[in-house]
Amino acid sequence: MHKSRIAGFCIDCQSNDLEAAARFWSAALGLKVRAGAPVDPLYRTLDTPPDQVTVEVQQVTHPSRVHLDIEADDIEAEVQRLEKLGARRVGAVKTWYVMEAPTGQRFCVVRVQRPDFAARANSWND
Amino acid sequence: MHKSRIAGFCIDCQSNDLEAAARFWSAALGLKVRAGAPVDPLYRTLDTPPDQVTVEVQQVTHPSRVHLDIEADDIEAEVQRLEKLGARRVGAVKTWYVMEAPTGQRFCVVRVQRPDFAARANSWND
Repeated sequence: MHKSRIAGFCIDCQSNDLEAAARFWSAALGLKVRAGAPVDPLYRTLDTPPDQVTVEVQQVTHPSRVHLDIEADDIEAEVQRLEKLGARRVGAVKTWYVMEAPTGQRFCVVRVQRPDFAARANSWND
Repeated sequence: MHKSRIAGFCIDCQSNDLEAAARFWSAALGLKVRAGAPVDPLYRTLDTPPDQVTVEVQQVTHPSRVHLDIEADDIEAEVQRLEKLGARRVGAVKTWYVMEAPTGQRFCVVRVQRPDFAARANSWND
């Protein structure tokens, strides 16, 4: 058995100015850019309440888009579950997997992101 | 003064089979497709708890993507606020506005969607 659910979304910005992109989305969504040094230089986290979806702004080289993240306590089991539904693996990146839905959107399967995961995520029998 | 915040996201699917698209995303995200006749034949709602973001699956003719919705209690005031931040109006559709961010993503400004809007949305001085 493993668990998964929506973690949140990532706003992928084809831009050389990640700070400006993060400033726009922070102001647009009314969410503060997390203070302090970013964990990854290509990402800025917009702070959301712990019981709400995560929002990241990412600097990318492909055309701008928005992608969903699914959080899972067993990434390989979750990727296999999604493959059975018709998604395909695009590739592993650091600690996550990039997938493509049968409807064409890219999305990621990431590690558990939020504190109420155990209580509120969906359980799947592997 | 008006209020706004993230409402949720819409999974735009370039597909002739909206039911199959909704089935995939329902299973992938562990969210049930709302029962009963859809309000709009091009949309299927995936049921989320009332304190969480909304998730819609939409049949579209443009390439598949994911777009964000911002909910507001004054759509024109919110559109003008976003224009001042650098977004542009793409066009009005039914009760909402399609916008484009300076980073290129399309998103929508929609009417209030969720019951805890008044308590949790951001307030803006117009």
